[in-house]
Amino acid sequence: MSYERKNIAAMQGYQSGEQPEDSLTIKLNTNENPYPPSPMVDELVNNLNSDNLRRYPPPTADKFRSLAAKIHEVQVNNIIATRGGDELLRLLITTYVEPGETIAMSEPSYSLYPVLAQIQNCPILKIPLQDDWTLPTDFADKVNNHGAKLTFIVNPHAPTGRLLDELSITKLAEQLDSILLVDEAYVDFIDPKIKYDCLKLVEKFDNLIFLRTLSKGYSLAGLRFGYGIAHPTLISPMLDKTRDSYNLDFFSQKIAEAALRDQSYAQQTWQKVRDERKNLAQALEALGYYCAPSQANFLLVTPDKNLNGSAEMLYEYLKQNNILVRFFNTPLLKDKLRITVGSPNENRQLIDVLKKVLRKSSS
Amino acid sequence: MSYERKNIAAMQGYQSGEQPEDSLTIKLNTNENPYPPSPMVDELVNNLNSDNLRRYPPPTADKFRSLAAKIHEVQVNNIIATRGGDELLRLLITTYVEPGETIAMSEPSYSLYPVLAQIQNCPILKIPLQDDWTLPTDFADKVNNHGAKLTFIVNPHAPTGRLLDELSITKLAEQLDSILLVDEAYVDFIDPKIKYDCLKLVEKFDNLIFLRTLSKGYSLAGLRFGYGIAHPTLISPMLDKTRDSYNLDFFSQKIAEAALRDQSYAQQTWQKVRDERKNLAQALEALGYYCAPSQANFLLVTPDKNLNGSAEMLYEYLKQNNILVRFFNTPLLKDKLRITVGSPNENRQLIDVLKKVLRKSSS
Repeated sequence: MSYERKNIAAMQGYQSGEQPEDSLTIKLNTNENPYPPSPMVDELVNNLNSDNLRRYPPPTADKFRSLAAKIHEVQVNNIIATRGGDELLRLLITTYVEPGETIAMSEPSYSLYPVLAQIQNCPILKIPLQDDWTLPTDFADKVNNHGAKLTFIVNPHAPTGRLLDELSITKLAEQLDSILLVDEAYVDFIDPKIKYDCLKLVEKFDNLIFLRTLSKGYSLAGLRFGYGIAHPTLISPMLDKTRDSYNLDFFSQKIAEAALRDQSYAQQTWQKVRDERKNLAQALEALGYYCAPSQANFLLVTPDKNLNGSAEMLYEYLKQNNILVRFFNTPLLKDKLRITVGSPNENRQLIDVLKKVLRKSSS
Repeated sequence: MSYERKNIAAMQGYQSGEQPEDSLTIKLNTNENPYPPSPMVDELVNNLNSDNLRRYPPPTADKFRSLAAKIHEVQVNNIIATRGGDELLRLLITTYVEPGETIAMSEPSYSLYPVLAQIQNCPILKIPLQDDWTLPTDFADKVNNHGAKLTFIVNPHAPTGRLLDELSITKLAEQLDSILLVDEAYVDFIDPKIKYDCLKLVEKFDNLIFLRTLSKGYSLAGLRFGYGIAHPTLISPMLDKTRDSYNLDFFSQKIAEAALRDQSYAQQTWQKVRDERKNLAQALEALGYYCAPSQANFLLVTPDKNLNGSAEMLYEYLKQNNILVRFFNTPLLKDKLRITVGSPNENRQLIDVLKKVLRKSSS
C-alpha cells in the first residue's frame, strides 16, 4: 500500500538539469561558472586529511559564518550556513510557514520554489512579471491580500537576468506583511558600476533574508554550500531548531572558507564572465537572437524564427552538436533558450554551431 | 516581530554532543569510531581534484546506491543515500506523516526523534522499554491504538546497546499498521556469531525501513553520509520528490563509495571495537560499574554509588581529567553514564582515572 501524504502523492519532484558524464559536452544549461575554483581551494583540497572525518563536524559552521560576516560587514548572528541555497529555502518554509498557508513567488521563477511549497502542502500564489521582467506595481498588495507568509523573488532574476534595484527591494520589504526571501544566487555577476548592495537592509528589516550560494560565483556547484543573511531573529530559529543537526560536513566547511577567503580570485572570474556575457550577447544578437539584458551569468534568448527556427529545434540541434542549453516554452516564456555564459572557447563553439543553423535556414 | 510557527517557537532544538577542538581530550561521549577511516578513503582523499566541484554532483548518488545494493544483496531501488542518517529520519516524516499525526518511539531513545517530530508539529507517543531494555509485548498494540503513522526504534538500542533479534523485528513489522523505521546506526558492532541480518525483510514488508550510517562503522562522522534500505515504494517518494535537489556533494559521494568498498578494513575496526568492548566492560565491572549488555560501540554504565559516587559527579570528574563521557539522569535513565568504546589506550586512561575515584572514595 502507499503510505504517502496526499500532497506528496499528488506532486511531481524537481527535475535536475541534464548532467552528462562525458567531458566532451559543452554544458551551458545549468549556470555553472566556466572557471575552476580558486587556487586556494585547490591547495586546501590537496591537503585534506581523511582523519579529520572521524569526528563530528562543527555543527553550525561558525568559522565560515564569521568569515562571511566579515566579508559582508554584518554580524555572525546575521548568518546561517546551509547545504546549498536549497536547504535555506526549505528551512524558511519549515520554520515560518504552516501547512495550508500561502507562499508567493514571481512567475516565471526558479522551478524549485513550487516543489518546496508543495512538500509543505502550501498553496502557491504565482504573480506574473511585467513584460520587462520587473515586478508589477501591485505585487506587494497581491501578496498581502492573499495572506502569503513567505515570498520568493530572485535578484538578478532567473531565467531572465533582469536586476531589481535597491529601492525596489527596500519598498517591497517595507510593504510586505510577511517574510521576503531575495534569492541572490547570481548577485556576483552584477556589473559593479551599478553599486547594487542590499545586505545592509537586514539591519532595518526583520522580515528580509538574502540567499547566497557558492555554486555560481565561487565555481563550487558540486560542493553544495550556501548561506542566508538576515536579522538575527530570522536566523536563529533555523540555526538552533530546524536545521538538520550536522548539516555541513567537515571538508565542505573548510573548502567554503578557502573559497570565500580568496575574494580576489573570485572577483576575477566574475569580471571574465561579465566580459564574456557582453561578447556573447553581441554575437547572438548579430545572428538574430534577441537577448534580454542580463546581470547574471546567463542570457535569456528569443530566436528570430524566420532566421533561425524555433527554440525547441535549436535546443535539439545544439544537443546533437554536444552543446547543452536550457529550453523553455511556457505561456510567460514562449520559445526561449537560456544559455549559460561559458568560457570564451565554449561561447565561440556555440556561435559557430548557431552560424551553421543560419546557413541551413537561409539556403 | 516573530514570524515563527507556533510549534517551532514552543520547541527546543537538538543539543549536539560536546566537541572540544583540542586533541588532548579523550572523546568517549558521541560514539565515534576510535580508528581512522580506511586507507582507501585516505588514498581517495589524497587524490581529490577541486575542479570536480565546478559542476553539480550526481543528484541521487547512484554509484553509491549501486555499491550499497551489491554489498547488502538488495536492488538499487531499495536504497536512498542521505546526508547522514538524520536526513533520512526527516524525509520519512516529511513524506509520510501529516502535521498532527502521531509519531511513536521507544523511551529512552535517540533525542533527535522528538525534535524532528516537533518540527513537523506531530504529537509524540513515547512507549517505555521494559527493565531489560526490550520492547513491551503490547508495543505494537499501543502504536496502532494511537494511530501513529511512523515508529522509530533503534537496534542495537541507544543508549543501552541492547539488541532485538530478527524475530522481534519481523513481528513488529507484521503487527504495525504503519511505517517502522529501524535505526541500525550501530549494527556493525553486533557480534557476527549472533547472525543478525534483517535486511532481507524489506522484500516482504513495504512498511519497514532500515537506517544505516557511515558515521560509526566507517569512522566518518565528519562526512555526514547515511542511507536507507526499504521496499522501493517507500524509497521512491523520498528519492524523487522530498529530498533536497542535490543533497550530497561530489566529494562525499566519492569518499562514501571508497569507504563502503573497503569492507575488509571496516570489519577489522568492528572486531577491534568488539574486543575492546569486552575488555572495557570487564574492567568497569571490576571497579563497581554495572554495564548493560551491549552490541553497540558504547556501554551504558551504572556506578555503584557507595564505591564510586554518582554518575553526575563521575562525569564532572572525568571531564576535569580531559575525558568526556555522556551523563544521563532521567526517570528511565537514572544515574547513568554512556561511555563510547575507545581505543585500547583511551580505555586504559579512562580506567586509570576511575581507579583514582575508587581510591578517593575508599580513603
